[in-house]
Amino acid sequence: MRVYDLILKKRGGGELSREEINYLIAGYTAGTIPDYQLSAFAMAVYFQGMTDREMLDLTLAMVGSGDTVSLSKIPGVKVDKHSTGGVGDTTTLVLAPLVAAAGVPVAKMAGRSLGHTGGTLDKLEAIPGFQSSLSIDEMIKAVQTCGIAVVGQTANLVPADKKLYALRDVTATVDSLPLIATSIMSKKLAAGADAFVLDVKTGDGAFMKELEEAFTLAEAMVEIGTGAGRETIAVITNMDQPLGWAVGNALEVKEAILTLQGKGPVDLAELCQVLGSWMLLLGGKATCLQEGRKILEQTIASGAALDKLRELIRLQHGDTAVVDDFSPLPRAKVTVPVKAVDRGYVHRLRAETVGRAAMALGAGRETKDDPVDLAVGVVLVKKVGDRVDPGDELAMIHLNCAPEAPLAAAARGLILEAYEVKPAPVAKPQLIFGYVDRAGRHRIF
Amino acid sequence: MRVYDLILKKRGGGELSREEINYLIAGYTAGTIPDYQLSAFAMAVYFQGMTDREMLDLTLAMVGSGDTVSLSKIPGVKVDKHSTGGVGDTTTLVLAPLVAAAGVPVAKMAGRSLGHTGGTLDKLEAIPGFQSSLSIDEMIKAVQTCGIAVVGQTANLVPADKKLYALRDVTATVDSLPLIATSIMSKKLAAGADAFVLDVKTGDGAFMKELEEAFTLAEAMVEIGTGAGRETIAVITNMDQPLGWAVGNALEVKEAILTLQGKGPVDLAELCQVLGSWMLLLGGKATCLQEGRKILEQTIASGAALDKLRELIRLQHGDTAVVDDFSPLPRAKVTVPVKAVDRGYVHRLRAETVGRAAMALGAGRETKDDPVDLAVGVVLVKKVGDRVDPGDELAMIHLNCAPEAPLAAAARGLILEAYEVKPAPVAKPQLIFGYVDRAGRHRIF
Repeated sequence: MRVYDLILKKRGGGELSREEINYLIAGYTAGTIPDYQLSAFAMAVYFQGMTDREMLDLTLAMVGSGDTVSLSKIPGVKVDKHSTGGVGDTTTLVLAPLVAAAGVPVAKMAGRSLGHTGGTLDKLEAIPGFQSSLSIDEMIKAVQTCGIAVVGQTANLVPADKKLYALRDVTATVDSLPLIATSIMSKKLAAGADAFVLDVKTGDGAFMKELEEAFTLAEAMVEIGTGAGRETIAVITNMDQPLGWAVGNALEVKEAILTLQGKGPVDLAELCQVLGSWMLLLGGKATCLQEGRKILEQTIASGAALDKLRELIRLQHGDTAVVDDFSPLPRAKVTVPVKAVDRGYVHRLRAETVGRAAMALGAGRETKDDPVDLAVGVVLVKKVGDRVDPGDELAMIHLNCAPEAPLAAAARGLILEAYEVKPAPVAKPQLIFGYVDRAGRHRIF
Repeated sequence: MRVYDLILKKRGGGELSREEINYLIAGYTAGTIPDYQLSAFAMAVYFQGMTDREMLDLTLAMVGSGDTVSLSKIPGVKVDKHSTGGVGDTTTLVLAPLVAAAGVPVAKMAGRSLGHTGGTLDKLEAIPGFQSSLSIDEMIKAVQTCGIAVVGQTANLVPADKKLYALRDVTATVDSLPLIATSIMSKKLAAGADAFVLDVKTGDGAFMKELEEAFTLAEAMVEIGTGAGRETIAVITNMDQPLGWAVGNALEVKEAILTLQGKGPVDLAELCQVLGSWMLLLGGKATCLQEGRKILEQTIASGAALDKLRELIRLQHGDTAVVDDFSPLPRAKVTVPVKAVDRGYVHRLRAETVGRAAMALGAGRETKDDPVDLAVGVVLVKKVGDRVDPGDELAMIHLNCAPEAPLAAAARGLILEAYEVKPAPVAKPQLIFGYVDRAGRHRIF
């Protein structure tokens, strides 16, 4: 077998066999196949795509390149939720304790923020003392004890994906659907859950800007998960404007706690209900989505969800006081309001621009090794559909520099740019566009 | 400027500026831009193509990556002929002395065989003593003295192309039209001629299998040559069956000498007339193609062309006796006929298969460093349109092993496979399909 022939085959739109894909990934992981051949192959995949069978085989080949986690010591159906990434997406912080409290074991491996999108680990580390660097055994023990753990990745999971992703990142081959789907699903499969609920976001702040693309990515991932023997569903959700009010690490922790108290923003709360219902269904804790939703409502109303968050924080050495009092959370030195200029209704609130404003303030990272300021960020006051008058507060910027600093001006400028205000009234945007299961697409109108 | 953005731009079908192309080629030549980015870029070019402007800029950037030859010390218009490569293509051996004898100075940098196609340097080295490794100064002095020199490349010409070609060769990005056109034209421009006659071959034994592709490649190269200020024309010629009778180094030298004696195969002789007339026209030695053809006919009839070959061989330390007596040429130990099985007419004679048979015998090289057996090869007896009866000799194999050896059987098998004999008579194939000048395509029907 020659790599050259495999590149040529893919370039011509051919379908690679399982053996060919295994050869490619094993050789690349071992370093016997050079970067320059893989980058040409990745570019050929960008143009020619991959069949479902190829994607499944590529995913499994990548899973096989490193260690895998076994969660078999944890009783019950382990359901993992994965989001394709967005702005102000605080769902994991809400969902993990919520579904754990409802009886679905949560052994979550979370990631960090990159670019304009946030990451759960950074957010959790805004809680003083919180430790995310548990070993796999410690994680399993934690879940056995109290049904929940949220940790950073420590084991050598999917090294092929790490290497390939780094290469794609410098060769303009990141945004290839088969490469995205296989990258995500290989990490999910290696982390050992039995079932997956995928939150595939679409719109301005999402990786997939177009609804059609999001459905196609969802189908590919559901196909892979199902093909690998794990029940998988994907919900297609709106990321045109940020989710909830808060964008920034400590600010989002606060918002998650509010949501677990039943006082969170409507869209975040609703998304958690939808994703959580699916998790309960797949986890065998509800027989239908409606029942799942009822259980989740009770779990919040009874305080059980908030208690579970307290338990999670205690088990991972964080300060549980934050659940009842936000003052131990990092707080920015200065808050500056951004005020409306025009009269009318918010027609758009560009999520990516808000994300970039938060990143400019220091809430996110441009590259993997940048430091993160856990206190700073943006709290949105007006969202799409809201009426505004000149002088109304649109958003509040939380920053750790003087309000006159160029950084503050830049962030304000970005926030103003993110808002589009027009005279005519406009409806609140649709939050859930549909879902994909192994039977196919289901659009919600 | 970031390479990433240039890959992305090309991937999206964008047009790179001159500065962007210069940055890419300078960085790649210097080693500051890694192979894995260039291979992804090359694959993006494969799918998205390049505009004429980009191709010219890429060609000039590659020319600028190394030394260039100045032929200004040689008086007259220096016209270089280039063939895109074929099987049994002995034109340079005929044309160089032919047009030199007619007054067009020939300072030719020739190449070696690779794959199923032959190379002029290997053929010339079948002449005992022939030295092709002249320095540029020695080459210029030789052309000043007797109007002709045929040498191998010694100077550091177009290092960017060397590096990029080696990369394309292992990443399945060789057969990209803009990359082919710029690679050829950068080497031609760096070698210093004032005008170019390009022989763009099409058909089974050519790089461009389809006529349409060949015209498109020709247009691209004419555009580049003209854009670089050198008069350039391209003739589109048939390489569906091998040119002439002989395929193999010493065998082709013999055939070239026969052609210069006016006793060569019809197709080879005709192609040399066509290409040579263009060379005389571009070199200012004829005012029209008809006049050029007349001059060439006289040059052969008078023996001046053969004398010029003798002069070339003497100047480059070869044994001039070969011009009048073939016995000093390397000769294979054994000749084995391949005989016809069927009755009918030769409908096809697959050039690539004949080329592979010659390569199997040792006449060519699979990789750059393989040794070449100058004596072996194939001499075709029947060509397309010829009538054959069972038992007729189709071709004669010249080999340096026992006739019972597996190699001999393999070569015979390939030759039989190359011939397609059918009952119905068939016309001799068209040799010249048309030409391309800066005014565009001109098809000959």
